[in-house]
Amino acid sequence: MNVYMEEMNPQKITLRDGFWCNRNQLLSEVIIPYQWDTLNNRTEGVPLSHAVDNFRIAAKEMDGTPGGTIFQDSDVAKWIEAAAYSLMHHPNSELESSIDELVRLIGESQHSNGYVNTFYTAKGIEQRWTDLEMGHELYCAGHLIEASVAYYQATGKRKLMDIMVLYANLIAEEFGPEEGKLHSYDGHPEIELALYRLAEATEDSRYMDLADYFMNIRGSIKRDATGASDKEERKPRSRWLTPDYFLEQKPIREMTEVTGHSVRAMYLYAGVADQYRRTGDQTLWDTLLSLWDSLEQRSVYITGGIGSQSHGERFTIDYDLPPDRGYTETCASIGLIFWAWRMSLIDPDNRYADMIEKQMYNGALSGISLDGKAYFYVNPLEIKPKVAAFRQDMEHVLTHRAGWFDCACCPTNIARLFGSIGKYIYSSTDTSIYIHQFISSETEIVLGDELVSLRQETKYPWHEEILISCTMEHQKHFGLMLRKPRWCDAWTLEINGMPCTSYCLEKGYIHIDRMWNDGDTVQLKLEMTVKLIQADSRAQDYCGKVALMRGPLVYCLEEFDNGPQLQELIINSESNFELEEEILQSIPSIHILLDGYRETVRTDSLYEHMKKNERIKVRLKAIPYYQWGNRAKDQEMRVWNRFI
Amino acid sequence: MNVYMEEMNPQKITLRDGFWCNRNQLLSEVIIPYQWDTLNNRTEGVPLSHAVDNFRIAAKEMDGTPGGTIFQDSDVAKWIEAAAYSLMHHPNSELESSIDELVRLIGESQHSNGYVNTFYTAKGIEQRWTDLEMGHELYCAGHLIEASVAYYQATGKRKLMDIMVLYANLIAEEFGPEEGKLHSYDGHPEIELALYRLAEATEDSRYMDLADYFMNIRGSIKRDATGASDKEERKPRSRWLTPDYFLEQKPIREMTEVTGHSVRAMYLYAGVADQYRRTGDQTLWDTLLSLWDSLEQRSVYITGGIGSQSHGERFTIDYDLPPDRGYTETCASIGLIFWAWRMSLIDPDNRYADMIEKQMYNGALSGISLDGKAYFYVNPLEIKPKVAAFRQDMEHVLTHRAGWFDCACCPTNIARLFGSIGKYIYSSTDTSIYIHQFISSETEIVLGDELVSLRQETKYPWHEEILISCTMEHQKHFGLMLRKPRWCDAWTLEINGMPCTSYCLEKGYIHIDRMWNDGDTVQLKLEMTVKLIQADSRAQDYCGKVALMRGPLVYCLEEFDNGPQLQELIINSESNFELEEEILQSIPSIHILLDGYRETVRTDSLYEHMKKNERIKVRLKAIPYYQWGNRAKDQEMRVWNRFI
Repeated sequence: MNVYMEEMNPQKITLRDGFWCNRNQLLSEVIIPYQWDTLNNRTEGVPLSHAVDNFRIAAKEMDGTPGGTIFQDSDVAKWIEAAAYSLMHHPNSELESSIDELVRLIGESQHSNGYVNTFYTAKGIEQRWTDLEMGHELYCAGHLIEASVAYYQATGKRKLMDIMVLYANLIAEEFGPEEGKLHSYDGHPEIELALYRLAEATEDSRYMDLADYFMNIRGSIKRDATGASDKEERKPRSRWLTPDYFLEQKPIREMTEVTGHSVRAMYLYAGVADQYRRTGDQTLWDTLLSLWDSLEQRSVYITGGIGSQSHGERFTIDYDLPPDRGYTETCASIGLIFWAWRMSLIDPDNRYADMIEKQMYNGALSGISLDGKAYFYVNPLEIKPKVAAFRQDMEHVLTHRAGWFDCACCPTNIARLFGSIGKYIYSSTDTSIYIHQFISSETEIVLGDELVSLRQETKYPWHEEILISCTMEHQKHFGLMLRKPRWCDAWTLEINGMPCTSYCLEKGYIHIDRMWNDGDTVQLKLEMTVKLIQADSRAQDYCGKVALMRGPLVYCLEEFDNGPQLQELIINSESNFELEEEILQSIPSIHILLDGYRETVRTDSLYEHMKKNERIKVRLKAIPYYQWGNRAKDQEMRVWNRFI
Repeated sequence: MNVYMEEMNPQKITLRDGFWCNRNQLLSEVIIPYQWDTLNNRTEGVPLSHAVDNFRIAAKEMDGTPGGTIFQDSDVAKWIEAAAYSLMHHPNSELESSIDELVRLIGESQHSNGYVNTFYTAKGIEQRWTDLEMGHELYCAGHLIEASVAYYQATGKRKLMDIMVLYANLIAEEFGPEEGKLHSYDGHPEIELALYRLAEATEDSRYMDLADYFMNIRGSIKRDATGASDKEERKPRSRWLTPDYFLEQKPIREMTEVTGHSVRAMYLYAGVADQYRRTGDQTLWDTLLSLWDSLEQRSVYITGGIGSQSHGERFTIDYDLPPDRGYTETCASIGLIFWAWRMSLIDPDNRYADMIEKQMYNGALSGISLDGKAYFYVNPLEIKPKVAAFRQDMEHVLTHRAGWFDCACCPTNIARLFGSIGKYIYSSTDTSIYIHQFISSETEIVLGDELVSLRQETKYPWHEEILISCTMEHQKHFGLMLRKPRWCDAWTLEINGMPCTSYCLEKGYIHIDRMWNDGDTVQLKLEMTVKLIQADSRAQDYCGKVALMRGPLVYCLEEFDNGPQLQELIINSESNFELEEEILQSIPSIHILLDGYRETVRTDSLYEHMKKNERIKVRLKAIPYYQWGNRAKDQEMRVWNRFI
């Protein structure tokens, strides 16, 4: 068994005044209550969730049939998980009572053999595991397991985890390599991650064995119980719902390119990273690196969004990244955080924590409104609302955030991301502490025999300074590793107010290996100049265009600031950039003012002989991408713009 | 009754050596036989047509059920029509025998009440007119009527027309305003055009009355027999198969914008123009002008392609003209020729004949390969074959021409266009002759009491000179009106070798009103410089891009000449253009060499800080758009390119 970096206990990480503290307050005060109301069908003007009622029905405390998607249970689970994280730092007895009552309901819905699933309870649980391809039973089980572990960690209450242990035991009895068991796995990975987490919480490695079994047979066998199509010769459900959609076109160890449904892919790859951390199987690591390269070099949007096609919510082919028709699902961005985090723990290379940061401030964050009550499922990089509202090939692109969805996987997923953001800040080995993310926070880390208290103070991502201070009883020699983001070309480092030159830069981390004293401070300053970004020219949609970034934030032009017909705008690449501080919905923010031109061409009959068009000088205003669509509905928006 | 310009008898127009003569030879020698084989299921490697067998089955001379689409009869009809045009100038007794045999079969398939339709014969003709929305019965009837008129004109043989007269009489008995008749119309306009044509051929205006009835009630009544959805409250079949898809969202006289299925729209508007020519109803003309403006100013591709969306094969919203995902169906371009031609006859403004020319050399012509045996249904303006082959939202875009289609409306439609191209050259009034198209040809026109023979000699569209000579017995005063295309800024005119200054330019036609003598010659020279074209900046896809035109031809860059990754290419807008004459599949052609750059950006991780990229000078080669995909399969192609 290999030892890689340790995750921190999330309860040991306290966020302090700053961007994420603000967002976590919103989580506790607004998002959790709003989502609870919505899961209980109490929010007006949004699609009914039915998710909590489904458990009432399954518990025989309500009449009716379950509503919503077949994986509606997972919305409840992710909400519990988010609420559990919230409770870790924002105790709330009323919320805890609601969860306890919900746990009771889930317990009542559990069958005597341990099975829990509201949809298959209604169908009759003898139907269980008959459509593993699309039935999402193990997926829902996985989310409930994750919720149970989080709630146990937050409150010490074991009841939900006990329920899920019974269920996990049933799964272990019914799936496995032995004769008479089902030789199969879920079409949507998630159970794998959950079983690893349950194994850690219960210190019972059998759950990891089961997770490894699911991953090892995936794509290796003609599996059992794939669903309706199993009765005949199994046929792809469409040209895009093929084995690679389900990540089973070949065994995982033979995969070299990211494929298929982007959320399924991320959850699977994250599970594979768990398996590698456990087993040290080099073929798994080679696979993970190859998949990562494929994603990072050929298949990801500048915002971190992934999945270029709506049909199949999936990856397409290398460099195909249309800005207006991608899927770029919020859940896929979140899933990529899960995967990147595990990669980080194995191999602290800044490419992984950079990707987490990219999602935190762009691709995932855009999935929720500043007020916490409206969501994007799809996060386009360019939108012309009238076109998107009309065209059938943009049917998946909403022109404004919605209060809820018929398929509402994203809102609760982003809630649990907000609640767990602290876990991505630090990690440690016996002799070193890594700081992956720059978030005002405090934590305590045991290094051998010494308890080190760390405090980070920063106005990141808006301002360049990060102040880290250490408190400890005795001197201690250890390595402090600070991520140097790849977006950052210039930085300064001081220790106790003096420039520090004694460090080395390794895989994008500044390694400071020294004897540390109580009260030592480290000041890292990451220069945040405004940058114009270009894309590899094989990404055909971005040739001749630039995007704007400052620090980790991708910026966009929005109609609200720049008027309609954004395609007429041209960025002056030699512009002076001016930063403008604003407060938007209680969050301080920095907007960028820059020089540009508007080139308007009006013709009699659509086309005309090219002439030197007048270019009117305009001062453009760019806002962080994640903020778009917060000030007015149905606004044009563009991340990539022409330039001269 | 108003008098507008007269169409010429197509038999009176003889094409002479040149572009269209060559294409008509191909029609007779290759296209007609190839399509006949294919309609008879004798072409290997293409979808089976079944179209002729369907008539054998309906005639009870073969067992089985009809195959292909519900409107498969129309493929046979359009082929007969094309063959009839071919026979006018290329007598071919074998072909005529084949058609006669086919006519016999159609006769045998006719029911005693006059009804002809292979699909509804199999269904049982008591089912007739039960799904007028999608059943295409009157559409098929229309095409058979058009074929019958053409065959009668070509050969003097009345049998098919007699058959269709019986059928038309049945339609007139069963549809109409009277009590007990069906108050309805076909979902796909076509019968309207056909009935006008039949009325002219039979000199029986009742058929025009029926056509007018169909047009007048369209969108005005809750119609009968719309199909399956009629049984309940009628619901749109999808968000895009709405009343406007069927051109029935309102009465035609209230329409102001082109909408719906683009082929249906063109056929309807053409019919409305027929009705206006007959009735002079000013509201119809106002409607037609408004529709035309909407198309020409906001809804047409530079190639003449129309229909921006695959789903519904339809118009979307103003300025939405994606180059890679449009539908731009060959049939829609052909339909637009029908409409434009009728507009031309009503109001000889060059905008109409320019549009016909645009289709003849671009949007419609690209629908057939140079060898005549392979077709595009969808004519994209930009293609990246690997992307188009993968993406679901490009499923409709073929990356190379196909030998036939499951839904094969386009191949026979382009065949009949080729065969009838001569009709678009001339028109006349009692006192004037219009030359709309520049095609080497001869014709005779009766002007009052004088027969004027006209001869056009030109190497158009490649060369600038057009020589027109008149032969007649006596001097004759008349107006000779020559179209001055809108693409042409500079031109010269000589009469009998002397510069002519005595003319006026009216609505884009050069009016030469004088006493003409036998042997007079007119030499028109239309300067064909290479031009860079820009689009109205509301067409967001074309901002910062230019297209290349020379004369009426739109040019494109193809991978075959310029290498892959065409998006990396940048046109030098100050380039010297060099013309290169080539012979491609026996057609002389002019390609354009021009200066440009290739800007290749290779990055480590897809995105990077913008830098001054190296731009490698390249000599680009542009070919006429219609020729793309003829030298190799699955080639990248782009009409609109970046420039500096």
